[in-house]
Amino acid sequence: MHVVQEQACFGGRQIRYQHDSSVLNCSMQFSVFLPPQAEQGPVPAVYWLSGLTCSDENFASKAGAQRVAAELGLALIIPDTSPRGEGVADDENGAYDLGLGAGFYVNATQAPWNKHYHMYDYVLSELPALVEAELPLSGKRAISGHSMGGHGALVLALRNPERFVSVSAFSPISNPSDCPWGHKALGAYLGDNRQMWAHYDASLLLVSKGCTLPILVDQGEADNFLHEQLKPQALVQAAKQANADLTLRMQAGYDHSYYFIASFIEDHLRFHAKHLG
Amino acid sequence: MHVVQEQACFGGRQIRYQHDSSVLNCSMQFSVFLPPQAEQGPVPAVYWLSGLTCSDENFASKAGAQRVAAELGLALIIPDTSPRGEGVADDENGAYDLGLGAGFYVNATQAPWNKHYHMYDYVLSELPALVEAELPLSGKRAISGHSMGGHGALVLALRNPERFVSVSAFSPISNPSDCPWGHKALGAYLGDNRQMWAHYDASLLLVSKGCTLPILVDQGEADNFLHEQLKPQALVQAAKQANADLTLRMQAGYDHSYYFIASFIEDHLRFHAKHLG
Repeated sequence: MHVVQEQACFGGRQIRYQHDSSVLNCSMQFSVFLPPQAEQGPVPAVYWLSGLTCSDENFASKAGAQRVAAELGLALIIPDTSPRGEGVADDENGAYDLGLGAGFYVNATQAPWNKHYHMYDYVLSELPALVEAELPLSGKRAISGHSMGGHGALVLALRNPERFVSVSAFSPISNPSDCPWGHKALGAYLGDNRQMWAHYDASLLLVSKGCTLPILVDQGEADNFLHEQLKPQALVQAAKQANADLTLRMQAGYDHSYYFIASFIEDHLRFHAKHLG
Repeated sequence: MHVVQEQACFGGRQIRYQHDSSVLNCSMQFSVFLPPQAEQGPVPAVYWLSGLTCSDENFASKAGAQRVAAELGLALIIPDTSPRGEGVADDENGAYDLGLGAGFYVNATQAPWNKHYHMYDYVLSELPALVEAELPLSGKRAISGHSMGGHGALVLALRNPERFVSVSAFSPISNPSDCPWGHKALGAYLGDNRQMWAHYDASLLLVSKGCTLPILVDQGEADNFLHEQLKPQALVQAAKQANADLTLRMQAGYDHSYYFIASFIEDHLRFHAKHLG
């Protein structure tokens, strides 16, 4: 991996890297924030998964997370949201919710997507192995994300609780088997067999596997996508059934934007720092 | 003026407005952050002037200023950087440093610019009169800005000390009479007479008029524009001559970006809050 850009930020370093991903079969960029404490020795990491249309740059530039990460000594690892580049399939109509910028953190099984769209394996394995080999990281991990990325964070943590100490999400797509975004993306990437979809549905996974990790979710009440796409109540019901440690905070007046994330990212980083020790 | 967009942010409201500017002779957008305290009564305001290529949205989305503004009870008033719209002159080669996005906070006297490019009067008079009539603002004002906007903030405060209680800047164009950006813009907007330029040169104004306001300037040492365009030492020399209250902080490792602004905006807002009382 090589540095594309590096900038001082809150006494630490905001860095953009490029590397050749063998899992995704293309060249990828991702962003990292290293807090000042990383100059002294290995630090734990919070992985951040972004939502539809985002790259690794949105969270880095808009969430204001580096201030608290610098205080708490947390690295931030921010992957892109899909494979990229020439030859990577995209939706033929250029839809924002399928293809480029919309990888949904799954391993696609259907053509033409299965050639590159393996964001699940990329975020779970290839990217952590790479950054933990190259950067001063302790190997302790938490994970968070927004919308499609909140879905990704929950799915990755629920299926791999040994890999993370805690998970949080902003406005996650909580039950993608039962919303238009999920139908479209899971149908395209995984085919029509809904048993395949269940491996990527946080509410179904919570019931089938339970969860020992603490889960924090923030959801804006003025979010336009709340009732049709996000459905946090499905997650609450599942957590009740599974007796899981889920805190859902409904935030009055807040929408789906980065102004919402910026307003509450401090709480999420402090939540993860407590569990990262 | 009417609301284009309104979003909850740190317990306050981030709002984008549109209005017809008679000074600029076109329709303009600007952004405002109203802190939670504005629900109870009038609050003081910090005006923020952005740099080349920016609109009102860059500072609103990237600086993370709303968190501290919400704590301190400060409104943020964020104008655009030039007149906009069909019929507004632009550089014929589409240069980033002249025309649209590059108004330099002057009143242009030269054609074709003099039809719309009156950003000095707009920011000094029309915009404050508008927002103070329509929003819960106390009329107490401080002013800050970045690069071209740092130049604008200093010039506006130095020429109108009765309008502001304090002024600050990030990486300001400190001596535009003596740098390529300034030569190009002041020459185009004001013509070849350098006596006209002196009305828009913070270092020359500081010597000729002095300054009773406290001035805070942050400048990154790794800023690519430092030596050729920004020249903060001219400001320091002028302040010494004028016996002015200038604090210049050289920040090791920081560049010209919003990561730099985000890292130190809290200090600037606390500086202004102290003087706003």
